[in-house]
Amino acid sequence: MDKNEILKQIDSLSEKKLEAMYLNDFLLTWDKSEDEIAATLQTAEILKSLRQNNISSRLYESGLAISIFRDQSTRTRFSFASACNLLGLAIQELDEEKSQIAHGETVRETANMISFLAEVIGIRDDIYLGEGHTYMLEVARAVEKGHQEGVLPQRPTLVNLQCDIDHPTQTMSDAFHLIHYFGGVENLKGKKIAMTWAYSPSYGKPLSVPQGIIGLMTRFGMDVVLAHPERYNLMPEVMDIAQKNCVQFGGSFNQATSMEDAFKDADIVYPKSWAPYSVMEERTRLLQGGDRQGLQDLEKRCLETNKHHIDWECTEKRMQITRDGQALYMHCLPADISGVSCERGEVASTVFERYRVAQYMQAGYKPYIIAAMIFLSKFKNPAEELSQLVNQARPRIN
Amino acid sequence: MDKNEILKQIDSLSEKKLEAMYLNDFLLTWDKSEDEIAATLQTAEILKSLRQNNISSRLYESGLAISIFRDQSTRTRFSFASACNLLGLAIQELDEEKSQIAHGETVRETANMISFLAEVIGIRDDIYLGEGHTYMLEVARAVEKGHQEGVLPQRPTLVNLQCDIDHPTQTMSDAFHLIHYFGGVENLKGKKIAMTWAYSPSYGKPLSVPQGIIGLMTRFGMDVVLAHPERYNLMPEVMDIAQKNCVQFGGSFNQATSMEDAFKDADIVYPKSWAPYSVMEERTRLLQGGDRQGLQDLEKRCLETNKHHIDWECTEKRMQITRDGQALYMHCLPADISGVSCERGEVASTVFERYRVAQYMQAGYKPYIIAAMIFLSKFKNPAEELSQLVNQARPRIN
Amino acid sequence: MDKNEILKQIDSLSEKKLEAMYLNDFLLTWDKSEDEIAATLQTAEILKSLRQNNISSRLYESGLAISIFRDQSTRTRFSFASACNLLGLAIQELDEEKSQIAHGETVRETANMISFLAEVIGIRDDIYLGEGHTYMLEVARAVEKGHQEGVLPQRPTLVNLQCDIDHPTQTMSDAFHLIHYFGGVENLKGKKIAMTWAYSPSYGKPLSVPQGIIGLMTRFGMDVVLAHPERYNLMPEVMDIAQKNCVQFGGSFNQATSMEDAFKDADIVYPKSWAPYSVMEERTRLLQGGDRQGLQDLEKRCLETNKHHIDWECTEKRMQITRDGQALYMHCLPADISGVSCERGEVASTVFERYRVAQYMQAGYKPYIIAAMIFLSKFKNPAEELSQLVNQARPRIN
Repeated sequence: MDKNEILKQIDSLSEKKLEAMYLNDFLLTWDKSEDEIAATLQTAEILKSLRQNNISSRLYESGLAISIFRDQSTRTRFSFASACNLLGLAIQELDEEKSQIAHGETVRETANMISFLAEVIGIRDDIYLGEGHTYMLEVARAVEKGHQEGVLPQRPTLVNLQCDIDHPTQTMSDAFHLIHYFGGVENLKGKKIAMTWAYSPSYGKPLSVPQGIIGLMTRFGMDVVLAHPERYNLMPEVMDIAQKNCVQFGGSFNQATSMEDAFKDADIVYPKSWAPYSVMEERTRLLQGGDRQGLQDLEKRCLETNKHHIDWECTEKRMQITRDGQALYMHCLPADISGVSCERGEVASTVFERYRVAQYMQAGYKPYIIAAMIFLSKFKNPAEELSQLVNQARPRIN
Repeated sequence: MDKNEILKQIDSLSEKKLEAMYLNDFLLTWDKSEDEIAATLQTAEILKSLRQNNISSRLYESGLAISIFRDQSTRTRFSFASACNLLGLAIQELDEEKSQIAHGETVRETANMISFLAEVIGIRDDIYLGEGHTYMLEVARAVEKGHQEGVLPQRPTLVNLQCDIDHPTQTMSDAFHLIHYFGGVENLKGKKIAMTWAYSPSYGKPLSVPQGIIGLMTRFGMDVVLAHPERYNLMPEVMDIAQKNCVQFGGSFNQATSMEDAFKDADIVYPKSWAPYSVMEERTRLLQGGDRQGLQDLEKRCLETNKHHIDWECTEKRMQITRDGQALYMHCLPADISGVSCERGEVASTVFERYRVAQYMQAGYKPYIIAAMIFLSKFKNPAEELSQLVNQARPRIN
Repeated sequence: MDKNEILKQIDSLSEKKLEAMYLNDFLLTWDKSEDEIAATLQTAEILKSLRQNNISSRLYESGLAISIFRDQSTRTRFSFASACNLLGLAIQELDEEKSQIAHGETVRETANMISFLAEVIGIRDDIYLGEGHTYMLEVARAVEKGHQEGVLPQRPTLVNLQCDIDHPTQTMSDAFHLIHYFGGVENLKGKKIAMTWAYSPSYGKPLSVPQGIIGLMTRFGMDVVLAHPERYNLMPEVMDIAQKNCVQFGGSFNQATSMEDAFKDADIVYPKSWAPYSVMEERTRLLQGGDRQGLQDLEKRCLETNKHHIDWECTEKRMQITRDGQALYMHCLPADISGVSCERGEVASTVFERYRVAQYMQAGYKPYIIAAMIFLSKFKNPAEELSQLVNQARPRIN
């Protein structure tokens, strides 16, 4: 986009109803209105274009962005750092091991103590069912109250960098990718996307990506099909949301019991491993009880169970049964690639390789998606702010 | 404060004698003159107001702020990061575990090697009696000499983020809090503050907070009362300083043997756990001798000893005997709250909760206190610099 | 240098042929042309002078600088952070332990995933012979390809922060030091530099410093003498490069079998410990085979072997036989100083102390050398960019 096109995009942004995003968090895509989802995608596009045109979007002269990673992360860590840096915020990580967080210190207290000069808090907490989202809500309430009480001079925005329920920065990047790929959000209507389980020799991957995908893609009027082996079901609450979306947005949400059924005539396939629901539940229980031996046994059993479904692999043969044998392959990365990162994995290496560049580009949208989420919650008149950036045209690189 | 009030404050700052702060460190409050203490508090207020008025105080286009944490920290870590970011400095942490600091590498060498482009060094080293302050002096001498020798193009300022003797960023924030609470520093004169030990089921908390409090509050003409169980005495050098302050500033410094005596008619109470002096001494000895078993035994014994004083708790009943039953409760946080963070702790949960917001606000002053300490040591004409910031009025958030 | 002198230096820079540096990496000094080496040293000088004149060289409003440290580091870590900060880039470290780098995840993928908004990647990977440089090439190819494929909006530059072959940020700082010390690069011609092994009670130091020194100093027409005990030889490829340099640049490269022979009439001595070549080879083999016991045995044997050469120490007596007893002593730091950091080490404490300030100043050039390497690879018209900085004269400290 050149400057004129950017300004046109900004104009269209100004027509959207975004008041509720201001000083609010981005935790679950289904908490957001159609306008808000559209505006986030559009703002990501605008921020990306500003950078391409060497226009700085450094809106902050100072301000902290806090990251809390309760699970390992490379992609999201760097995306969050990139997004914050793009807006002028400096990252300060809360490393809970290096921190003097007293036993029993309340989340309320810690959340306030780190937020005095913080504009945003990004959290990844995806390991335990029933925990991550709950924790984020607790932090959000704490800083909301801290702001009301006059403790915090500003209300830091929360961005969910993956919880037990949703992974909005990932799925919104996926949506961004699909919109680009199919040439417009209107073209997603009626497209079939197969969100399927796939075998991986690893254990305990969160359910948040498949949940996030069925919760978001049903909003674009897509035909979403979910397939997984028995017992690998998702949270019923999210299944309900997917169903309700279909009523509202005119798509469909169905389940299949085999990869083949799901892949049949699919326009998009998203084969990805996750843990059995009951295992995730038991893991939370064992952890809360401090049962280390139990956790090890569970891991062993879970890997054994996985092995029964080693044939759930996105092979060339299966790709052949998709729409014209040409479905778009997607993955949130890193994928377990058969013969590359493991003996047998989620996807055949030739399939992955054919879509590798597209996948990498998809991952590259995440910094802009996150920056858009932050930006829309921090500025009351986003269109005005963006216009000002274009008009000032301060170079990002001098 | 609006702009005019800020400019008035800056005017009053320009009348203070601050030459000795320039290119100097902030290690102990009692090394600072009355003007210097007052200017630090005033500058903190000004920097806070600038931010409230969305005026950037980013004085540095580039420059590093180095942090060295030899003990865990959340509050101070984030306060230091916030302060440096407010001035435009980027944090670089010296993680001594990840560093190639050769066995026997001198402090002199490391201090110089990390400081080539550093404007400030913040250090927390509070675990061993006789060590933290000594280490800070050694670093200060090293960078002072490095600057004289032409090795360092600038002389980085040291800020004591808690040592074995004092915790000036904490106690200055406490003072800031009291001044706000009582409506002016002149109103502190004659107020009774009870700095008392309190029971905590944890081990080996530093002595620097109570020491810092008696060393600083006696400068405001306050009536400071210290109370603790036998053997939990403080460093005699600091007791002497508190006494001398009384002579100079017209307050008083007394000791009590029970919480009741200390709390009686107190305007402020500061009940907080710390380790027995002899335990702190023995710990240093055992550590230097590498006696791990001895350290474990010591911890066990210390926790046992603590238990004899489990009744040293800031209860509602004890609060009743303070001035009109209304004394201000203070704590440097995190507090051990009975029934919240532990079974029996330093303070009853209802007392803590009643003063929670005030406490949190107090903690929120720390970033500005630290920024003021850095600022006053880096700029020769602080009032002029601050005026310029107000006049430029560059927005912090665009 | 004042502004006029800086502008003169910039003029002279504009006459150099630097096209090949643009969007290229800095991995080995012998990959660089004479003009490129000269321009790097000159740009370092200019950036240093800009800072001395309080002129900001913050060329980036936003942008990440990624560091990957596969070995411990203090000096280089802080130098890289300082360099990036000087240009306006924010450091984001890839901590491979905290990262979700899947087993078998390709370097290609990780390199792309962290680089979406990255301008530079600094890597230290110096522990295993045959590994570090190879890894850097792999990362370079990955981001080069990522850029071509449209995955990365810019091609991040790689800077070698020490590999198994070369340590260019160190040796270029050494060269910078020598040029200052002898009053011009032309005065290095014919100077004798003794790069010798020295005893240290530590194990497995990389070969990259001595290799880098013989590979770089032979380019200035110096008489380079290498001396080490038997079996402590360097990589034959680098020996060849040193020989070839002599033919091209008119210096000499010889080997001696004792410190005495090497020190005789030397203008500069660089006594430094490194591991036996065969040990480095065996270590790589054992590591690849996962043989922990073997690695421990190897370390023990290596330390034993080292002890046979405990007399390889840079003593006052040996310094006496250098040119007029006045050779410049050099070390990349930290040095093992006899009686200071160990009982017997690389250098006598009186020798070290006499050259300590010079050594520290040498270390202080590294941030500017690294900034110059980054700058010259990121800007097509470096002289023009630098002129603009001088003319804008935006203050680094407001």
